[in-house]
Amino acid sequence: MKIDGRDYRSVWVDADDHWSVHILDQTKLPWSLEVLRLTTRDAAAHAIRSMQTRGAPVIGAVAAYGLCLALREDASTEAMERDADLLNATRPTAINLRWALDRMLTRLRNTPASERVAVAYHEAALIADEDAAQNAAIGRHGLPLIEAAVRPGRRVNVLTHCNAGWLATVDWGTALSPIYTAFNAGIDLHVWVDETRPRNQGAALTAWELGKHGVPHTVVADNAGGHLMQHGEVDLVIVGADRVTRTGDAANKIGTYLKALAARDNNVPFWVAMPSTTIDWTVSDGVAEIPIEERSETEVTEMTGRMADGTIATMRVISAGSPAANPAFDVTPARLLTGLITERGRCPASAEGLLGLFPERR
Amino acid sequence: MKIDGRDYRSVWVDADDHWSVHILDQTKLPWSLEVLRLTTRDAAAHAIRSMQTRGAPVIGAVAAYGLCLALREDASTEAMERDADLLNATRPTAINLRWALDRMLTRLRNTPASERVAVAYHEAALIADEDAAQNAAIGRHGLPLIEAAVRPGRRVNVLTHCNAGWLATVDWGTALSPIYTAFNAGIDLHVWVDETRPRNQGAALTAWELGKHGVPHTVVADNAGGHLMQHGEVDLVIVGADRVTRTGDAANKIGTYLKALAARDNNVPFWVAMPSTTIDWTVSDGVAEIPIEERSETEVTEMTGRMADGTIATMRVISAGSPAANPAFDVTPARLLTGLITERGRCPASAEGLLGLFPERR
Repeated sequence: MKIDGRDYRSVWVDADDHWSVHILDQTKLPWSLEVLRLTTRDAAAHAIRSMQTRGAPVIGAVAAYGLCLALREDASTEAMERDADLLNATRPTAINLRWALDRMLTRLRNTPASERVAVAYHEAALIADEDAAQNAAIGRHGLPLIEAAVRPGRRVNVLTHCNAGWLATVDWGTALSPIYTAFNAGIDLHVWVDETRPRNQGAALTAWELGKHGVPHTVVADNAGGHLMQHGEVDLVIVGADRVTRTGDAANKIGTYLKALAARDNNVPFWVAMPSTTIDWTVSDGVAEIPIEERSETEVTEMTGRMADGTIATMRVISAGSPAANPAFDVTPARLLTGLITERGRCPASAEGLLGLFPERR
Repeated sequence: MKIDGRDYRSVWVDADDHWSVHILDQTKLPWSLEVLRLTTRDAAAHAIRSMQTRGAPVIGAVAAYGLCLALREDASTEAMERDADLLNATRPTAINLRWALDRMLTRLRNTPASERVAVAYHEAALIADEDAAQNAAIGRHGLPLIEAAVRPGRRVNVLTHCNAGWLATVDWGTALSPIYTAFNAGIDLHVWVDETRPRNQGAALTAWELGKHGVPHTVVADNAGGHLMQHGEVDLVIVGADRVTRTGDAANKIGTYLKALAARDNNVPFWVAMPSTTIDWTVSDGVAEIPIEERSETEVTEMTGRMADGTIATMRVISAGSPAANPAFDVTPARLLTGLITERGRCPASAEGLLGLFPERR
């Protein structure tokens, strides 16, 4: 997607030297745009660990490129296995990280050490390109939903929660991919961006990337969505997902469930956009079975922003001495979803719906 | 209610001089407790205008005492009418402000100028005492709801939104009055405090006053309530209201509607606590008829808190250049409410329910 008119991905190989790896430093967003040039395994590991790069698909691609950088230093089998383990340990629960490194190792173990660097860069590029292509497909399958909401003389209003945009993937994003696709097709649309407390991914990242691409949007407090829907200000909701059960329940950023309830109460279509790698075919009851990560209290009690003098600061925003709790995700039952948007197409949020798109899982 | 073991009201007359008026400076909370001593009409007007004192019932009482201070300077009829107009203009839309000043004038117009100061202090004290008594009654009528949720071996979990506590009234509060009453009666309870973006009245004021009184509580992002209810962590919800229609629809702080939807989806009782002065007997359809105030964008884009060095600062928390919208209230339809708690008792949220408690309105 574009930043001020220029095309970017969230990770790319240098166009001149053809080997150093570039990422956007997401810890600096939305306050400044800083491109990091990674030249070593350790720099790549640090970028993942410190969340300079974040979002399941993109950290998979950065880890793959991290292995390329490691192989430039030592392409022996012993070093390769050790370095893959090291990269894998940077974010222990990230499924895509393990998946990308396993794919790299499978390809490289049968490759002579002398050819590994070239093969590794080729495979990492495939991983990145496939992610971008998959997300572009999600955008194409979501586009008709936005087209169907077009009414003469008024813009289409889409509400989204958290950041499921191109910053969290290699390109396009998941929930935002249909929005970018519709915007690029010239549809007059506007996005309500939930602030997404406590980590403010909506106010910081979604607002930033929509603004840089030129998509009209307005940030609202997470509390506002129900009121907007009651008054006809939301035509559809599209969110991403961290995990979708085989029955269509969707675990996503905390607060998603509340918006799905409001959408149902006001007959607003509510769609979850995600690649099929997000589907957990082993889980049937999302609310009962998906463990919800309880994150640090300081994400609620403290907030980071930009002071009037331009410095970035962190401050406490909650009464001193009061404790806080921070469940990071919630589960929206399938019954509240209008449907799912995947790289293969749309389907009802149900076991039958998913099996219709993925018959090989029957 | 108590602050660190000592009883306070949100407005009181000095115990020694018997004429100066004291309030808590709410613009300094929760970061510091500062008592303001008001000695002039202009100081009282400034305190209301600048929101040093806030909450409909308490600003009514402060305005009444402001008229007392004005009468000490000039007790003539002409000055009295002018000063009442001046105080009334400090917050043009506050119903209680007008109501309290009208009551004062009705009492004082037929009082000789020489007796007006004494009569005015007496009437202002009645207004304050009646508010406290009315809220204490709300607490008594709400207490059985909390008692009914007591289960052996576990605490009762109550969720509340925004600040409908003693800081917003003369004493006890509305939504928090049943909570204080139950806590004082020794019931083992715990309060989930919604942060209440964008103005953070939950994280700042509700957390502060519960903490100072010793009531166990935990602040959560506004997004978290649905997840907590899904997992049995909320036994009942009690919120206040800014306006209740004759049919039982409740306008309250933005986000209340989302919590009511989640409560209904999880069979959690959801109660609105408010004095009968909050009922607007002229309105039948809250969503269609109650105008929702759109407040300043900066309440969403900026946040105030305490820096590590103790200074209080304000910073931008939303991507630069992104606009924000700030609807301040929403309307929860009566169908989602378990019932209403008033100073006369509890009733269903319906026209018949309200007329049962207030038969004089038939």
